Amino acid sequence: MTQLETSMACLMKIFDTYAGKEGKPDTPTKAEVKTLLDKELPGRLKKRSAEDVNKLLKDLDFNGDGEVDFTEFMVLVTSITSKQCFYLSLHSKKLFTLL
Amino acid sequence: MTQLETSMACLMKIFDTYAGKEGKPDTPTKAEVKTLLDKELPGRLKKRSAEDVNKLLKDLDFNGDGEVDFTEFMVLVTSITSKQCFYLSLHSKKLFTLL
Repeated sequence: MTQLETSMACLMKIFDTYAGKEGKPDTPTKAEVKTLLDKELPGRLKKRSAEDVNKLLKDLDFNGDGEVDFTEFMVLVTSITSKQCFYLSLHSKKLFTLL
Repeated sequence: MTQLETSMACLMKIFDTYAGKEGKPDTPTKAEVKTLLDKELPGRLKKRSAEDVNKLLKDLDFNGDGEVDFTEFMVLVTSITSKQCFYLSLHSKKLFTLL
């Protein structure tokens, strides 16, 4: 597989892993997304108040169905990665964790 | 790094690699996106007519600036991956290349 295909497969696997813990297996609940963020982006949510986190989770749920589907998950990945890109292009080519 | 951070770093690296070949180093031209698709998603564009490919590249350029920025690139990645997810959830957990 190419690097892009590997990244795509990895993103799907991450999404499926956390989505499958409770409720519907193909869409994570907000609690499952919070667990995903805690585990996959360690330390980031700690800088945020509970209120901020709830707002982030609410904002992610574009269609208001109480769940985060894959596209909504990818919006989160894109926004975090875009910030990385912006920060990286400003400073240096080392990955800095920023939310 | 976690799996998600590794995937994010990989997506950034892929984007930077192809964006840096000509013109502005942080936004690939449509020609560079086509090269990216040919190399990173081998075989997919072959099923498509030149007209389809041009339409895809045009559609990707949401802000019409003649380039594809990282967010526009991630829309492409999301749409392809979402189709993968849909196809995978219907059939089996093996990665099928579909555009």
